[in-house]
Amino acid sequence: MYTLYLANKNYSSWSLRPWVLMRTLDIAFEEALVPFNDPDPANDFARFSPTGKVPCLVDGDITVWDTLAITEYLAERHSGVWSGEAKARAWSRSASAEMHSGFQALRSLHPMNVGLRIRPHAASSSLVRDIARIDALWQQGLEAFGGPFLAGEAFSAVDAFFCPVAFRFQTYGTSLSPASQAYQERLLGLAAMQAWQAASLREPWRDPEHEQEAAATGEIVQDLRGAA
Amino acid sequence: MYTLYLANKNYSSWSLRPWVLMRTLDIAFEEALVPFNDPDPANDFARFSPTGKVPCLVDGDITVWDTLAITEYLAERHSGVWSGEAKARAWSRSASAEMHSGFQALRSLHPMNVGLRIRPHAASSSLVRDIARIDALWQQGLEAFGGPFLAGEAFSAVDAFFCPVAFRFQTYGTSLSPASQAYQERLLGLAAMQAWQAASLREPWRDPEHEQEAAATGEIVQDLRGAA
Ligand SMILES: N[C@@H](CCC(=O)N[C@@H](CS)C(=O)NCC(=O)O)C(=O)O
Ligand SMILES: N[C@@H](CCC(=O)N[C@@H](CS)C(=O)NCC(=O)O)C(=O)O
Repeated sequence: MYTLYLANKNYSSWSLRPWVLMRTLDIAFEEALVPFNDPDPANDFARFSPTGKVPCLVDGDITVWDTLAITEYLAERHSGVWSGEAKARAWSRSASAEMHSGFQALRSLHPMNVGLRIRPHAASSSLVRDIARIDALWQQGLEAFGGPFLAGEAFSAVDAFFCPVAFRFQTYGTSLSPASQAYQERLLGLAAMQAWQAASLREPWRDPEHEQEAAATGEIVQDLRGAA
Repeated sequence: MYTLYLANKNYSSWSLRPWVLMRTLDIAFEEALVPFNDPDPANDFARFSPTGKVPCLVDGDITVWDTLAITEYLAERHSGVWSGEAKARAWSRSASAEMHSGFQALRSLHPMNVGLRIRPHAASSSLVRDIARIDALWQQGLEAFGGPFLAGEAFSAVDAFFCPVAFRFQTYGTSLSPASQAYQERLLGLAAMQAWQAASLREPWRDPEHEQEAAATGEIVQDLRGAA
Protein backbone atom coordinates (compact mmCIF):
# COMPACT_ATOMS: atom_id res chain seq x y z
CA MET A 1 0.00 0.00 0.00
CA TYR A 2 1.28 3.44 -0.90
CA THR A 3 1.47 6.22 1.65
CA LEU A 4 1.12 9.72 0.22
CA TYR A 5 2.39 12.48 2.49
CA LEU A 6 0.79 15.80 1.81
CA ALA A 7 0.04 19.13 3.51
CA ASN A 8 -3.05 21.27 4.09
CA LYS A 9 -5.47 20.77 1.25
CA ASN A 10 -6.43 24.42 1.28
CA TYR A 11 -2.88 25.53 0.42
CA SER A 12 -0.76 22.72 -0.94
CA SER A 13 -0.92 22.91 -4.70
CA TRP A 14 1.80 20.32 -5.25
CA SER A 15 0.11 17.81 -2.95
CA LEU A 16 -3.08 18.05 -4.97
CA ARG A 17 -1.52 16.67 -8.16
CA PRO A 18 -0.72 13.06 -7.17
CA TRP A 19 -3.74 12.94 -4.86
CA VAL A 20 -6.25 13.79 -7.58
CA LEU A 21 -4.43 11.52 -10.04
CA MET A 22 -4.49 8.50 -7.72
CA ARG A 23 -8.08 9.10 -6.67
CA THR A 24 -9.31 9.52 -10.22
CA LEU A 25 -7.42 6.46 -11.49
CA ASP A 26 -8.52 4.40 -8.48
CA ILE A 27 -5.00 3.72 -7.25
CA ALA A 28 -5.32 2.85 -3.57
CA PHE A 29 -3.22 4.80 -1.06
CA GLU A 30 -3.14 5.86 2.53
CA GLU A 31 -3.14 9.61 3.06
CA ALA A 32 -0.77 11.15 5.62
CA LEU A 33 -1.69 14.79 6.01
CA VAL A 34 0.95 16.84 7.83
CA PRO A 35 0.01 20.51 8.36
CA PHE A 36 2.40 23.30 7.39
CA ASN A 37 4.48 24.85 10.17
CA ASP A 38 3.17 22.57 12.87
CA PRO A 39 5.06 23.09 16.14
CA ASP A 40 4.99 19.34 16.89
CA PRO A 41 8.46 18.03 15.93
CA ALA A 42 6.80 14.76 14.86
CA ASN A 43 5.24 16.83 12.07
CA ASP A 44 8.51 18.16 10.68
CA PHE A 45 8.40 17.45 6.91
CA ALA A 46 12.08 16.50 7.09
CA ARG A 47 11.02 13.40 9.04
CA PHE A 48 9.66 11.75 5.92
CA SER A 49 10.83 13.91 3.01
CA PRO A 50 14.50 14.34 2.00
CA THR A 51 13.80 17.86 0.71
CA GLY A 52 11.48 18.80 3.57
CA LYS A 53 8.75 19.23 0.96
CA VAL A 54 5.48 17.55 0.09
CA PRO A 55 4.17 15.55 -1.67
CA CYS A 56 6.18 12.45 -0.95
CA LEU A 57 5.17 8.92 -1.85
CA VAL A 58 6.35 5.98 0.24
CA ASP A 59 6.11 2.45 -1.17
CA GLY A 60 7.77 -0.05 1.16
CA ASP A 61 11.43 0.96 1.37
CA ILE A 62 11.18 3.34 -1.61
CA THR A 63 10.60 7.07 -1.09
CA VAL A 64 9.73 9.22 -4.09
CA TRP A 65 9.94 12.90 -3.25
CA ASP A 66 8.68 14.99 -6.13
CA THR A 67 5.40 15.18 -8.08
CA LEU A 68 6.88 14.40 -11.48
CA ALA A 69 8.93 11.51 -10.11
CA ILE A 70 5.84 10.20 -8.29
CA THR A 71 3.91 10.41 -11.56
CA GLU A 72 6.51 8.39 -13.47
CA TYR A 73 6.78 5.92 -10.60
CA LEU A 74 3.03 5.32 -10.81
CA ALA A 75 3.14 5.21 -14.62
CA GLU A 76 5.48 2.21 -14.42
CA ARG A 77 2.97 0.37 -12.22
CA HIS A 78 -0.53 1.41 -13.33
CA SER A 79 -2.17 2.02 -16.68
CA GLY A 80 -3.77 5.33 -17.61
CA VAL A 81 -1.31 7.63 -15.86
CA TRP A 82 -0.30 9.05 -19.25
CA SER A 83 -2.23 8.77 -22.51
CA GLY A 84 -1.70 5.51 -24.41
CA GLU A 85 -1.00 7.41 -27.62
CA ALA A 86 2.67 8.32 -28.19
CA LYS A 87 2.11 11.81 -29.56
CA ALA A 88 -0.36 12.77 -26.85
CA ARG A 89 2.01 11.32 -24.26
CA ALA A 90 4.98 13.37 -25.50
CA TRP A 91 2.81 16.49 -25.47
CA SER A 92 1.50 15.67 -21.99
CA ARG A 93 4.98 15.20 -20.57
CA SER A 94 6.19 18.45 -22.13
CA ALA A 95 3.23 20.42 -20.77
CA SER A 96 3.56 18.83 -17.32
CA ALA A 97 7.30 19.49 -17.18
CA GLU A 98 6.70 23.08 -18.27
CA MET A 99 4.25 23.44 -15.37
CA HIS A 100 6.72 21.74 -13.02
CA SER A 101 9.58 24.17 -13.64
CA GLY A 102 7.79 27.29 -14.84
CA PHE A 103 4.93 29.70 -14.19
CA GLN A 104 6.76 31.38 -11.31
CA ALA A 105 4.61 34.51 -11.59
CA LEU A 106 1.34 32.61 -11.37
CA ARG A 107 2.63 30.53 -8.49
CA SER A 108 3.86 33.42 -6.39
CA LEU A 109 1.30 36.09 -7.37
CA HIS A 110 -1.85 33.93 -7.40
CA PRO A 111 -1.16 31.34 -4.70
CA MET A 112 -3.63 28.53 -4.18
CA ASN A 113 -6.07 29.08 -1.34
CA VAL A 114 -9.05 26.91 -2.18
CA GLY A 115 -11.52 28.51 0.21
CA LEU A 116 -11.00 32.15 -0.74
CA ARG A 117 -12.57 34.30 -3.45
CA ILE A 118 -10.39 37.30 -4.24
CA ARG A 119 -10.74 40.40 -6.43
CA PRO A 120 -7.11 40.63 -7.49
CA HIS A 121 -4.97 43.71 -7.97
CA ALA A 122 -4.12 44.53 -11.58
CA ALA A 123 -1.97 41.73 -12.98
CA SER A 124 1.71 42.30 -13.74
CA SER A 125 2.88 41.56 -17.26
CA SER A 126 4.58 38.34 -16.14
CA LEU A 127 1.32 37.12 -14.58
CA VAL A 128 -0.64 38.04 -17.72
CA ARG A 129 1.92 36.10 -19.76
CA ASP A 130 1.65 33.01 -17.55
CA ILE A 131 -2.15 32.99 -17.72
CA ALA A 132 -2.12 33.47 -21.51
CA ARG A 133 0.36 30.63 -21.91
CA ILE A 134 -1.80 28.25 -19.86
CA ASP A 135 -4.88 29.26 -21.83
CA ALA A 136 -3.01 28.58 -25.09
CA LEU A 137 -1.69 25.22 -23.85
CA TRP A 138 -5.14 24.10 -22.76
CA GLN A 139 -6.71 25.06 -26.08
CA GLN A 140 -3.90 23.32 -27.94
CA GLY A 141 -4.26 20.04 -26.06
CA LEU A 142 -8.05 20.03 -26.27
CA GLU A 143 -7.92 20.67 -30.00
CA ALA A 144 -5.04 18.36 -30.89
CA PHE A 145 -6.32 15.32 -29.00
CA GLY A 146 -10.06 15.89 -29.25
CA GLY A 147 -10.94 16.55 -25.57
CA PRO A 148 -12.68 16.59 -23.22
CA PHE A 149 -9.38 16.21 -21.32
CA LEU A 150 -6.02 17.61 -22.37
CA ALA A 151 -4.67 14.38 -23.83
CA GLY A 152 -8.01 13.15 -25.18
CA GLU A 153 -10.88 11.16 -23.79
CA ALA A 154 -9.51 10.17 -20.42
CA PHE A 155 -8.31 12.18 -17.46
CA SER A 156 -4.54 11.64 -17.10
CA ALA A 157 -1.49 13.06 -15.34
CA VAL A 158 -1.28 16.18 -17.49
CA ASP A 159 -4.76 17.15 -16.28
CA ALA A 160 -3.67 16.51 -12.69
CA PHE A 161 -0.74 18.88 -13.21
CA PHE A 162 -3.19 21.68 -14.04
CA CYS A 163 -5.72 20.95 -11.27
CA PRO A 164 -4.17 23.49 -8.88
CA VAL A 165 -4.47 26.10 -11.64
CA ALA A 166 -8.20 25.39 -11.87
CA PHE A 167 -8.53 26.27 -8.16
CA ARG A 168 -6.39 29.38 -8.59
CA PHE A 169 -8.49 30.61 -11.53
CA GLN A 170 -11.60 29.98 -9.42
CA THR A 171 -10.23 31.99 -6.50
CA TYR A 172 -9.08 34.97 -8.59
CA GLY A 173 -11.97 34.92 -11.10
CA THR A 174 -9.51 34.68 -13.98
CA SER A 175 -10.92 35.28 -17.49
CA LEU A 176 -10.18 32.60 -20.05
CA SER A 177 -11.10 31.65 -23.59
CA PRO A 178 -14.41 29.74 -23.77
CA ALA A 179 -12.68 26.40 -24.43
CA SER A 180 -10.34 26.83 -21.47
CA GLN A 181 -13.13 28.01 -19.22
CA ALA A 182 -15.17 24.91 -20.05
CA TYR A 183 -12.11 22.77 -19.34
CA GLN A 184 -11.54 24.52 -16.01
CA GLU A 185 -15.14 23.75 -15.03
CA ARG A 186 -14.63 20.13 -16.07
CA LEU A 187 -11.66 19.87 -13.71
CA LEU A 188 -13.53 21.56 -10.87
CA GLY A 189 -16.42 19.13 -11.38
CA LEU A 190 -14.32 15.96 -11.00
CA ALA A 191 -15.33 13.88 -8.00
CA ALA A 192 -11.76 14.00 -6.67
CA MET A 193 -11.60 17.79 -7.01
CA GLN A 194 -14.94 18.17 -5.24
CA ALA A 195 -13.71 15.94 -2.43
CA TRP A 196 -10.45 17.89 -2.12
CA GLN A 197 -12.34 21.18 -2.05
CA ALA A 198 -14.79 19.96 0.58
CA ALA A 199 -11.91 18.77 2.75
CA SER A 200 -10.12 22.11 2.29
CA LEU A 201 -13.15 24.00 3.54
CA ARG A 202 -13.37 21.82 6.64
CA GLU A 203 -9.72 22.19 7.66
CA PRO A 204 -9.20 23.86 11.04
CA TRP A 205 -5.75 25.33 10.28
CA ARG A 206 -5.00 28.90 9.22
CA ASP A 207 -1.33 29.22 8.37
CA PRO A 208 -0.39 32.92 8.79
CA GLU A 209 2.25 32.81 6.04
CA HIS A 210 -0.14 31.41 3.45
CA GLU A 211 -2.98 33.68 4.56
CA GLN A 212 -0.83 36.79 4.29
CA GLU A 213 0.38 35.74 0.87
CA ALA A 214 -3.22 35.44 -0.32
CA ALA A 215 -4.33 38.68 1.32
CA ALA A 216 -1.56 40.56 -0.47
CA THR A 217 -2.94 39.61 -3.89
CA GLY A 218 -6.09 41.74 -3.72
CA GLU A 219 -9.36 42.13 -1.85
CA ILE A 220 -10.80 39.05 -0.20
CA VAL A 221 -14.47 39.04 -1.11
CA GLN A 222 -15.43 35.70 0.38
CA ASP A 223 -14.03 33.03 2.69
CA LEU A 224 -15.90 29.77 2.28
CA ARG A 225 -14.09 27.97 5.07
CA GLY A 226 -15.83 27.08 8.27
CA ALA A 227 -14.87 28.90 11.44
CA ALA A 228 -11.53 27.62 12.74
CA MET B 1 16.58 10.96 -37.00
CA TYR B 2 16.16 13.23 -33.99
CA THR B 3 16.93 16.93 -34.20
CA LEU B 4 18.04 18.51 -30.94
CA TYR B 5 17.72 22.28 -30.84
CA LEU B 6 20.06 23.88 -28.36
CA ALA B 7 21.78 27.20 -27.67
CA ASN B 8 25.38 28.34 -27.07
CA LYS B 9 27.31 25.56 -25.39
CA ASN B 10 29.17 28.03 -23.21
CA TYR B 11 25.97 29.21 -21.52
CA SER B 12 23.06 26.84 -22.04
CA SER B 13 22.92 24.57 -19.04
CA TRP B 14 19.58 23.02 -19.98
CA SER B 15 20.78 22.20 -23.51
CA LEU B 16 23.72 20.28 -22.07
CA ARG B 17 21.56 17.67 -20.35
CA PRO B 18 19.96 15.85 -23.31
CA TRP B 19 23.05 16.44 -25.45
CA VAL B 20 25.43 14.71 -23.03
CA LEU B 21 22.87 11.96 -22.38
CA MET B 22 22.37 11.18 -26.07
CA ARG B 23 26.08 11.36 -26.87
CA THR B 24 27.03 9.12 -23.97
CA LEU B 25 24.31 6.56 -24.73
CA ASP B 26 25.13 6.66 -28.46
CA ILE B 27 21.68 7.85 -29.51
CA ALA B 28 22.10 9.42 -32.94
CA PHE B 29 20.83 12.98 -33.46
CA GLU B 30 21.36 16.04 -35.53
CA GLU B 31 22.36 19.12 -33.60
CA ALA B 32 20.73 22.45 -34.39
CA LEU B 33 22.57 25.16 -32.48
CA VAL B 34 20.74 28.47 -32.36
CA PRO B 35 22.64 31.26 -30.56
CA PHE B 36 20.95 33.31 -27.83
CA ASN B 37 19.63 36.73 -28.82
CA ASP B 38 20.55 36.41 -32.46
CA PRO B 39 19.19 39.33 -34.51
CA ASP B 40 18.38 37.01 -37.44
CA PRO B 41 14.60 36.34 -37.21
CA ALA B 42 15.25 32.84 -38.59
CA ASN B 43 17.01 32.23 -35.25
CA ASP B 44 14.07 33.18 -33.03
CA PHE B 45 13.63 30.27 -30.57
CA ALA B 46 9.86 30.62 -30.98
CA ARG B 47 10.28 29.30 -34.53
CA PHE B 48 10.86 25.78 -33.27
CA SER B 49 10.01 25.83 -29.55
CA PRO B 50 6.51 26.46 -28.16
CA THR B 51 7.97 28.06 -25.03
CA GLY B 52 10.73 29.94 -26.86
CA LYS B 53 13.19 27.91 -24.82
CA VAL B 54 15.82 25.29 -25.51
CA PRO B 55 16.41 22.39 -25.54
CA CYS B 56 13.76 21.08 -27.85
CA LEU B 57 13.73 17.66 -29.47
CA VAL B 58 12.03 17.11 -32.81
CA ASP B 59 11.23 13.59 -33.97
CA GLY B 60 9.22 13.65 -37.19
CA ASP B 61 5.97 15.44 -36.38
CA ILE B 62 6.53 15.27 -32.61
CA THR B 63 8.10 18.19 -30.71
CA VAL B 64 9.22 17.64 -27.12
CA TRP B 65 10.05 20.92 -25.43
CA ASP B 66 11.50 20.32 -22.01
CA THR B 67 14.53 18.41 -20.69
CA LEU B 68 12.58 16.07 -18.42
CA ALA B 69 10.00 15.33 -21.10
CA ILE B 70 12.81 14.72 -23.61
CA THR B 71 14.42 12.33 -21.14
CA GLU B 72 11.21 10.31 -20.70
CA TYR B 73 10.59 10.37 -24.44
CA LEU B 74 14.02 8.84 -25.00
CA ALA B 75 13.53 6.39 -22.11
CA GLU B 76 10.53 4.91 -23.95
CA ARG B 77 12.68 4.30 -27.03
CA HIS B 78 16.22 3.48 -25.83
CA SER B 79 17.63 1.40 -23.01
CA GLY B 80 19.94 2.82 -20.38
CA VAL B 81 18.32 6.25 -20.05
CA TRP B 82 17.41 5.42 -16.46
CA SER B 83 18.88 2.67 -14.29
CA GLY B 84 17.35 -0.78 -14.84
CA GLU B 85 16.88 -1.22 -11.09
CA ALA B 86 13.52 0.02 -9.74
CA LYS B 87 14.82 1.57 -6.53
CA ALA B 88 17.71 3.35 -8.25
CA ARG B 89 15.30 4.52 -10.93
CA ALA B 90 12.85 6.00 -8.41
CA TRP B 91 15.74 7.77 -6.67
CA SER B 92 17.10 9.02 -10.01
CA ARG B 93 13.78 10.45 -11.08
CA SER B 94 13.29 12.17 -7.71
CA ALA B 95 16.78 13.71 -7.80
CA SER B 96 16.37 14.80 -11.43
CA ALA B 97 12.95 16.32 -10.78
CA GLU B 98 14.36 18.12 -7.72
CA MET B 99 17.07 19.60 -9.97
CA HIS B 100 14.48 20.45 -12.61
CA SER B 101 12.31 22.59 -10.36
CA GLY B 102 14.72 23.66 -7.64
CA PHE B 103 18.14 25.10 -6.87
CA GLN B 104 17.09 28.60 -7.88
CA ALA B 105 19.93 30.17 -5.89
CA LEU B 106 22.62 28.07 -7.56
CA ARG B 107 21.12 28.69 -10.98
CA SER B 108 20.87 32.44 -10.66
CA LEU B 109 23.92 33.14 -8.46
CA HIS B 110 26.39 30.72 -10.09
CA PRO B 111 25.31 30.70 -13.75
CA MET B 112 27.01 28.32 -16.15
CA ASN B 113 29.77 29.89 -18.24
CA VAL B 114 32.01 26.99 -19.22
CA GLY B 115 35.04 29.04 -20.28
CA LEU B 116 35.37 31.25 -17.21
CA ARG B 117 37.17 30.72 -13.91
CA ILE B 118 35.77 32.98 -11.20
CA ARG B 119 36.70 33.81 -7.60
CA PRO B 120 33.17 34.23 -6.30
CA HIS B 121 31.87 36.74 -3.81
CA ALA B 122 30.93 35.29 -0.41
CA ALA B 123 28.01 32.91 -0.89
CA SER B 124 24.55 33.79 0.38
CA SER B 125 22.91 31.34 2.75
CA SER B 126 20.53 30.12 0.02
CA LEU B 127 23.49 29.36 -2.25
CA VAL B 128 25.33 27.56 0.57
CA ARG B 129 22.17 25.51 1.16
CA ASP B 130 21.83 24.57 -2.51
CA ILE B 131 25.46 23.46 -2.74
CA ALA B 132 25.22 21.44 0.47
CA ARG B 133 22.06 19.74 -0.77
CA ILE B 134 23.72 18.73 -4.05
CA ASP B 135 26.75 17.45 -2.18
CA ALA B 136 24.48 15.37 0.08
CA LEU B 137 22.46 14.03 -2.87
CA TRP B 138 25.60 13.00 -4.73
CA GLN B 139 27.03 11.23 -1.71
CA GLN B 140 23.73 9.50 -1.10
CA GLY B 141 23.40 8.18 -4.66
CA LEU B 142 27.02 7.07 -4.85
CA GLU B 143 26.72 5.23 -1.56
CA ALA B 144 23.26 3.71 -2.05
CA PHE B 145 23.88 2.33 -5.53
CA GLY B 146 27.61 1.64 -5.35
CA GLY B 147 28.96 4.22 -7.84
CA PRO B 148 30.89 5.28 -9.79
CA PHE B 149 27.79 7.05 -11.18
CA LEU B 150 24.80 8.27 -9.20
CA ALA B 151 22.55 5.31 -9.97
CA GLY B 152 25.32 2.73 -10.01
CA GLU B 153 27.71 1.39 -12.61
CA ALA B 154 26.44 3.12 -15.70
CA PHE B 155 26.08 6.78 -16.61
CA SER B 156 22.35 7.58 -16.89
CA ALA B 157 19.94 10.50 -17.06
CA VAL B 158 20.34 11.49 -13.42
CA ASP B 159 24.05 12.09 -14.06
CA ALA B 160 23.17 14.14 -17.14
CA PHE B 161 20.91 16.29 -14.97
CA PHE B 162 23.89 17.22 -12.80
CA CYS B 163 26.41 17.77 -15.62
CA PRO B 164 25.81 21.54 -15.74
CA VAL B 165 26.50 21.63 -12.00
CA ALA B 166 29.90 20.01 -12.62
CA PHE B 167 30.78 22.90 -14.96
CA ARG B 168 29.49 25.46 -12.47
CA PHE B 169 31.53 23.99 -9.62
CA GLN B 170 34.59 24.05 -11.93
CA THR B 171 34.05 27.71 -12.80
CA TYR B 172 33.51 28.87 -9.22
CA GLY B 173 36.04 26.51 -7.57
CA THR B 174 33.33 25.16 -5.26
CA SER B 175 34.52 23.03 -2.31
CA LEU B 176 32.86 19.66 -1.95
CA SER B 177 33.18 16.49 0.11
CA PRO B 178 35.86 14.13 -1.27
CA ALA B 179 33.28 11.70 -2.70
CA SER B 180 31.41 14.48 -4.49
CA GLN B 181 34.62 16.04 -5.74
CA ALA B 182 35.70 12.73 -7.25
CA TYR B 183 32.28 12.38 -8.85
CA GLN B 184 32.49 15.91 -10.27
CA GLU B 185 35.86 15.04 -11.84
CA ARG B 186 34.34 11.86 -13.26
CA LEU B 187 31.63 13.91 -14.98
CA LEU B 188 34.12 16.46 -16.30
CA GLY B 189 36.23 13.62 -17.68
CA LEU B 190 33.45 12.06 -19.78
CA ALA B 191 34.15 12.16 -23.51
CA ALA B 192 30.89 14.00 -24.14
CA MET B 193 31.67 16.61 -21.45
CA GLN B 194 35.14 17.15 -22.89
CA ALA B 195 33.65 17.59 -26.36
CA TRP B 196 31.05 20.06 -25.06
CA GLN B 197 33.71 22.03 -23.23
CA ALA B 198 36.01 22.16 -26.26
CA ALA B 199 33.13 23.39 -28.42
CA SER B 200 32.22 26.02 -25.78
CA LEU B 201 35.74 27.40 -25.84
CA ARG B 202 35.70 27.70 -29.62
CA GLU B 203 32.38 29.56 -29.83
CA PRO B 204 32.62 33.04 -31.36
CA TRP B 205 29.61 34.53 -29.53
CA ARG B 206 29.71 36.67 -26.40
CA ASP B 207 26.17 37.32 -25.18
CA PRO B 208 26.25 40.54 -23.11
CA GLU B 209 23.43 39.41 -20.81
CA HIS B 210 25.12 36.13 -19.90
CA GLU B 211 28.56 37.77 -19.59
CA GLN B 212 27.25 40.44 -17.23
CA GLU B 213 25.49 37.83 -15.14
CA ALA B 214 28.77 35.92 -14.75
CA ALA B 215 30.83 39.06 -14.08
CA ALA B 216 28.46 40.02 -11.25
CA THR B 217 29.23 36.81 -9.34
CA GLY B 218 32.83 37.67 -8.42
CA GLU B 219 36.24 38.30 -9.92
CA ILE B 220 36.99 36.68 -13.27
CA VAL B 221 40.45 35.18 -12.92
CA GLN B 222 40.65 33.40 -16.26
CA ASP B 223 38.82 33.27 -19.59
CA LEU B 224 39.76 30.14 -21.49
CA ARG B 225 37.80 31.02 -24.59
CA GLY B 226 39.60 31.96 -27.81
CA ALA B 227 39.43 35.57 -28.98
CA ALA B 228 35.99 36.30 -30.44
N1 LIG C 1 9.10 20.31 -7.08
C1 LIG C 1 8.39 19.85 -5.91
C2 LIG C 1 7.75 21.04 -5.21
C3 LIG C 1 7.14 20.68 -3.87
C4 LIG C 1 6.82 21.90 -3.01
O1 LIG C 1 7.33 23.02 -3.23
N2 LIG C 1 5.96 21.69 -1.98
C5 LIG C 1 5.59 22.73 -1.04
C6 LIG C 1 4.13 22.62 -0.64
S1 LIG C 1 3.00 22.79 -1.96
C7 LIG C 1 6.32 22.51 0.27
O2 LIG C 1 6.41 21.39 0.73
N3 LIG C 1 6.82 23.58 0.90
C8 LIG C 1 7.39 23.46 2.19
C9 LIG C 1 8.70 24.12 2.28
O3 LIG C 1 9.23 24.56 1.23
O4 LIG C 1 9.21 24.21 3.41
C10 LIG C 1 7.37 18.82 -6.36
O5 LIG C 1 7.06 18.82 -7.57
O6 LIG C 1 6.94 17.97 -5.56
N1 LIG D 1 12.38 23.73 -17.91
C1 LIG D 1 13.07 23.95 -19.16
C2 LIG D 1 14.06 25.09 -19.01
C3 LIG D 1 14.66 25.54 -20.32
C4 LIG D 1 15.37 26.89 -20.25
O1 LIG D 1 15.15 27.70 -19.34
N2 LIG D 1 16.23 27.15 -21.26
C5 LIG D 1 16.95 28.42 -21.36
C6 LIG D 1 18.37 28.21 -21.86
S1 LIG D 1 19.38 27.23 -20.85
C7 LIG D 1 16.32 29.28 -22.44
O2 LIG D 1 15.98 28.77 -23.50
N3 LIG D 1 16.17 30.58 -22.23
C8 LIG D 1 15.71 31.46 -23.24
C9 LIG D 1 14.61 32.33 -22.76
O3 LIG D 1 14.12 32.13 -21.63
O4 LIG D 1 14.24 33.24 -23.54
C10 LIG D 1 13.72 22.65 -19.54
O5 LIG D 1 13.92 21.82 -18.65
O6 LIG D 1 14.00 22.42 -20.73
